[in-house]
Amino acid sequence: MSGNSRLYFEDMEEGHTVESASHTITAEEIDAFAALSGDNHLLHTDADYAATTPFGERIAHGMLVLSVATGLATKMGDLTGTVEAFTGVDWKFRAPVKIDDEVRVRLEVLKKRSMPGYDGGLVTFKAAILNQNERAVQKGTWTLLIRSRPSS
Amino acid sequence: MSGNSRLYFEDMEEGHTVESASHTITAEEIDAFAALSGDNHLLHTDADYAATTPFGERIAHGMLVLSVATGLATKMGDLTGTVEAFTGVDWKFRAPVKIDDEVRVRLEVLKKRSMPGYDGGLVTFKAAILNQNERAVQKGTWTLLIRSRPSS
Repeated sequence: MSGNSRLYFEDMEEGHTVESASHTITAEEIDAFAALSGDNHLLHTDADYAATTPFGERIAHGMLVLSVATGLATKMGDLTGTVEAFTGVDWKFRAPVKIDDEVRVRLEVLKKRSMPGYDGGLVTFKAAILNQNERAVQKGTWTLLIRSRPSS
Repeated sequence: MSGNSRLYFEDMEEGHTVESASHTITAEEIDAFAALSGDNHLLHTDADYAATTPFGERIAHGMLVLSVATGLATKMGDLTGTVEAFTGVDWKFRAPVKIDDEVRVRLEVLKKRSMPGYDGGLVTFKAAILNQNERAVQKGTWTLLIRSRPSS
């Protein structure tokens, strides 16, 4: 499923799949994430050190890639303005993301449940972050709080 | 458990608990994370909008707080230099973190297993991010790849 129609809680049917735009991970983003998170592991921050590892070059923090993916998700046309919060993630970091790799996120509705006292509910998605070679570099589930369609 | 002795894979016994230093979340960090992740939800970025919500003020992205916690973990004296990678998280975002809130992370060893062909193994921790009021604002498990003690 794709397109420009905004998706509300009522529209989240099991199996519905949406996919984000792509984003290229840069060296500057890795540096900025190291500064912000405080995770200055040399594998992320030091090209000379990284060259001595099996990766051969600097890799992005897994949490940077996941953070970028959540941002990509909030900007999907389908979900813009309807995602209220991330409430849970169950997640595996499977493969490295290197500088200039392109990542995007794919979300497939697994299940949903209404929230008492809230105009909407929780939707659990099967989620994967894919790179430019269609490899799922990270995967698992995300649970998001999504709004109901406004009554007209 | 605390102290300055470095912890290797062999030292990870069930129930061992370590706790990080505290970190104060700032408005500038929230702005930087919005720019880096692309998640510009108004609840994070617009004080006037946030004032109209039940939170009453801007809150940090849950993923920012989790990212800071991973950085705090890598800087714990016990774990500095022995954590090689984050391989998985199973995580609930439970309560908001606001500007000037102080967060720290507590890790308790749940289980461990050796990795064939790697000098160390995977350790799963029960993890919690606590605020200045001792409330667990985020919690779940982290699985980290941790090195063995170097042979002397």
